[in-house]
Amino acid sequence: MVELDKQLDFIMEMDLLKSVYRQALVKSDNNRQENSAEHSWHIAMMALTLHPYASEPIDINRVVQMLLLHDVVEIDAGDTFAFAADEALAGQHAKELAAVERIFGLLPEQQYQHCKVLWLEFEQAETADARFAKAMDRVLPLLQNMKNNGGSWRNHQIKKTQVLNRNKYLAGSAPALWQHACQQIELAVQHGWLLDQ
Amino acid sequence: MVELDKQLDFIMEMDLLKSVYRQALVKSDNNRQENSAEHSWHIAMMALTLHPYASEPIDINRVVQMLLLHDVVEIDAGDTFAFAADEALAGQHAKELAAVERIFGLLPEQQYQHCKVLWLEFEQAETADARFAKAMDRVLPLLQNMKNNGGSWRNHQIKKTQVLNRNKYLAGSAPALWQHACQQIELAVQHGWLLDQ
Ligand SMILES: [Ca+2]
Repeated sequence: MVELDKQLDFIMEMDLLKSVYRQALVKSDNNRQENSAEHSWHIAMMALTLHPYASEPIDINRVVQMLLLHDVVEIDAGDTFAFAADEALAGQHAKELAAVERIFGLLPEQQYQHCKVLWLEFEQAETADARFAKAMDRVLPLLQNMKNNGGSWRNHQIKKTQVLNRNKYLAGSAPALWQHACQQIELAVQHGWLLDQ
Repeated sequence: MVELDKQLDFIMEMDLLKSVYRQALVKSDNNRQENSAEHSWHIAMMALTLHPYASEPIDINRVVQMLLLHDVVEIDAGDTFAFAADEALAGQHAKELAAVERIFGLLPEQQYQHCKVLWLEFEQAETADARFAKAMDRVLPLLQNMKNNGGSWRNHQIKKTQVLNRNKYLAGSAPALWQHACQQIELAVQHGWLLDQ
């Protein structure tokens, strides 16, 4: 199979991410569920807008690439709700690793390696780029829920401590944004959108 | 208004692009219409995959940024079908220029300028980056239609010459991809998905 055929197969496979639906709701579109393709676009736009708040040096282009590709594994593994039980999250990781091999494996060797390295770096969240990327991925649903009367939090009786914990990457990688997030979380508790626990 | 408030307003405004629907169909999701947010993600992934085919030196990171932001104007201006009549396309341009001011104008001055410059560069298609970006934006619907029995072409009785003309940027900016596109267009005529005119 020539390189171009592999690359075109990969590109057409990407279409499937448009049918992976998340718990997040799209307020502007009658509160339908959000899919992972449009979510990936939104967090990339967010990173491009907020990268001046990074407290460590980051390469915004690598951050954007990580954000664009990190959810591609959901084509095989599906989306797991952010606040799912631990067992569900553990099973998810194995499914995602298999998806990395199958989906990025559609690409020629060098591009497969490039994508896999970025995906693993994002997952491990041990570099400044990955921590900032992960912080973006996690804070956007918070902002969406705040603009939507609590959105997916209310449907699932989520606790304040769960949201604080999920957004912990923000504290180190963008303190000004972390401060904003903490204020929003307090507001959400006052509105009754998050449980005060 | 402090910078962060402006940036957060812009980020939340982006949510609206998820409710702008295009003529393209998402085969993997029961042939529903595609929205411009997920389309923007898809063409960015495509550019990241196919940039080795660019025949002129390009900065792939600028290309990705152009592709991520170029459709944002549709929040106000809506999507115009690629093969709409000339009058519709002319009116669209004025609406899009107004949208550039309102939507990118939500951002702090420096970021507003940055986005506007990239958007205008994409529209004018006079630089290597913009030509390659435009070629990506235009060839993806062709590939989607080929995987979907002619997709949106069949619904609108599109002619071969229209598709060739729409993909002309590819000829200069990525000749190997142009060759592939021309073969696909011939196949589409053979299948009766495009009119042989
Ligand atoms: Ca995610």
